[in-house]
Amino acid sequence: MSSDETVRAVDYSRVFNQAIDRLHAEGRYRVFIDILRNKGMFPNARCFAGHNGPKPITVWCSNDYLAMGQHPKVIAAMEEALHDVGAGSGGTRNIGGNTHYHIDLESELADLHGKEGALLFTSGYVSNEATLATLAKVLPGCIIFSDELNHASMIAGIRNSGCEKRVFRHNDLEHLEELLAESDPQAPKLIAFESVYSMDADIAPIAEICDLADKYNALTYLDEVHAVGMYGARGGGISERDGVADRLNIIEGTLGKAFGVMGGYIAADRTIIDVIRSYAPGFIFTTSLSPVLVAGALASVRHLKASSAEREGQQVAAAKLKAMFRDAGLPVMDSTTHIVPLMVGDPVKAKRVSDILLAEYGVYVQPINFPTVPRGTERLRFTPGPAHDESMMRELTDALVEIWGRLEMRRAA
Amino acid sequence: MSSDETVRAVDYSRVFNQAIDRLHAEGRYRVFIDILRNKGMFPNARCFAGHNGPKPITVWCSNDYLAMGQHPKVIAAMEEALHDVGAGSGGTRNIGGNTHYHIDLESELADLHGKEGALLFTSGYVSNEATLATLAKVLPGCIIFSDELNHASMIAGIRNSGCEKRVFRHNDLEHLEELLAESDPQAPKLIAFESVYSMDADIAPIAEICDLADKYNALTYLDEVHAVGMYGARGGGISERDGVADRLNIIEGTLGKAFGVMGGYIAADRTIIDVIRSYAPGFIFTTSLSPVLVAGALASVRHLKASSAEREGQQVAAAKLKAMFRDAGLPVMDSTTHIVPLMVGDPVKAKRVSDILLAEYGVYVQPINFPTVPRGTERLRFTPGPAHDESMMRELTDALVEIWGRLEMRRAA
Repeated sequence: MSSDETVRAVDYSRVFNQAIDRLHAEGRYRVFIDILRNKGMFPNARCFAGHNGPKPITVWCSNDYLAMGQHPKVIAAMEEALHDVGAGSGGTRNIGGNTHYHIDLESELADLHGKEGALLFTSGYVSNEATLATLAKVLPGCIIFSDELNHASMIAGIRNSGCEKRVFRHNDLEHLEELLAESDPQAPKLIAFESVYSMDADIAPIAEICDLADKYNALTYLDEVHAVGMYGARGGGISERDGVADRLNIIEGTLGKAFGVMGGYIAADRTIIDVIRSYAPGFIFTTSLSPVLVAGALASVRHLKASSAEREGQQVAAAKLKAMFRDAGLPVMDSTTHIVPLMVGDPVKAKRVSDILLAEYGVYVQPINFPTVPRGTERLRFTPGPAHDESMMRELTDALVEIWGRLEMRRAA
Repeated sequence: MSSDETVRAVDYSRVFNQAIDRLHAEGRYRVFIDILRNKGMFPNARCFAGHNGPKPITVWCSNDYLAMGQHPKVIAAMEEALHDVGAGSGGTRNIGGNTHYHIDLESELADLHGKEGALLFTSGYVSNEATLATLAKVLPGCIIFSDELNHASMIAGIRNSGCEKRVFRHNDLEHLEELLAESDPQAPKLIAFESVYSMDADIAPIAEICDLADKYNALTYLDEVHAVGMYGARGGGISERDGVADRLNIIEGTLGKAFGVMGGYIAADRTIIDVIRSYAPGFIFTTSLSPVLVAGALASVRHLKASSAEREGQQVAAAKLKAMFRDAGLPVMDSTTHIVPLMVGDPVKAKRVSDILLAEYGVYVQPINFPTVPRGTERLRFTPGPAHDESMMRELTDALVEIWGRLEMRRAA
């Protein structure tokens, strides 16, 4: 190349470094905390990085909401599968990777939600992305009505579908109806929303959204990842609790949060399952879930169908922690769920509180920043569960009160 | 609704059923075979559906190429992690799901490919989709040059990036150069390709593609999912075997094929890893790989770095099977790799052969049809490995010869 051409050539390194610099400048460069949880002693864990050897910590931000990741039945099922069939599935669902465990778990999940069928994916993210993108492609001219706070994976699926998207204000029925009413009555329509919004800790009016879907002949797609296992008599989620599961066309869930393992799924009628199974690249072209995970999830789902002790323990713990935070004057956000968010409103401060908690108090709670929540609403998000006891909550509250004072942060009104 | 409106309303059920009918009409409706592999006895497995109870079979289409899914070191590592830290990670990499195993495996993979860093994803599909989509977004105006036979996950990533795409004919250097030469010299460029093409069983001219990348100032992205663990002195893939790993910007691999477990990854320089880690929704917004899987993959990668016995066993088995097929006059496709495809050229016949093999001979090989391969090139794809012995190969070859005769199918020239 001549020197002239060299000057004009793209400097890839510079572009990549600038992208990283922007994160530092905004105070939202992410540092992953290096931990191992201690099975049998959740929420206790050991923390590696930045310390001299492993240091004991209490985890307050896990989505293993019910500590099922350490449940003896789950561990035993995984160990049995590991020794019976080995580590991985060895293939896609179509080419060698369809194990009997997959079939059994799909039946169990279909039953959990009262649907004809279910379909497993490698993650909840992939289940949302693949299903929404594929549904809209199979329905030419489809319009998707999407809650403004929908998860990134739903947004990805909707965008990748290439179809028209109308965003309604969070849980706002009037706005949703306005958008439905002004759309072509003959166009296929899909309303995509969540039951429990993980970062705001509130719940969608599912029945009323289904009423609108009936009125305007729209399909309904409900993400229940922060609800399955935790709500409803058998852990079928908010749709089970509210008695509206049969009104939803597709219920999406995860095996990686309350069920304690990994993977995602949808439940729906037989034809929809068959369409997604047959047409979704994110389902077709990927090695299926390890049978070890599937066996563990199967044990977990079955256990939580029959046992409510974990769900009740979680609700008691959440109510207690919210009360302690409120009594201490901490700015706990309104929450009608098991999730307890504390508003900070600044990425640097949120990270600072988190750093002090970890370094000085052995408390691990990750700061939540953009793009997970909108800029200016950075927060700490606590997930108390049945394994968090009152003395842990007391220590946490006292620590937060001390740090709030030290950093001169805003208290609750 | 008035009856008039009812008539015009979208009939979702009908649309979905029509989508399924199209698959039946084309003879490519997929039926998943319901199996469990027998750990310690791969390639033996038991088959459920359509039989009276489990029936023993030999699996000939697994991507657990080296039978690492049953390796004692892998099983032991997974069992240890299961009992130490539990079933799932409990969170995203940023929020509670970053375990010490993840850190260790990323170091091991970076070392395997001679790169500064590596990044784990829940699958190879997600690693391709997320990385390609994100890279191109960080590089405004980027043009991606893509081999026409690239995997669906790369195609998804490129499409979702929204950037300009130029498809070059499979492994065709002249065509690639033609496309590079006619593009804006100042535009960022990325060449995306695979080392081993899984369905055609051939290998890309990596060094020559890197020469073109140098000449036209393009980044290179190499998918090595069908090569890692199997080629190169330490299992670093074709790029290690050919001594060109340092010329590639990004090497992508899987933990779900030769390494026998589940998950995907990229290896690259520190800044690129940091960019993908920080900007890719498919990495950020998903529960991280279960530590049980990560521990198993770590044991597998370490073992295959030090041991070549599995690689050599696989090459011997592949050579033997190809020779047997050729000697028997079966239409084995040209293959310079461990993959042994037999061309059929018709979806119904390919399925028929597969069905007879399973029902009458206890041999499991999945027919490969559209969209995995182009229409009219339907095939059977065999993956002999170190655990397939000569008597299994003999039985397989004899069975195929009998069926080929029975169905009056085309023999090799």
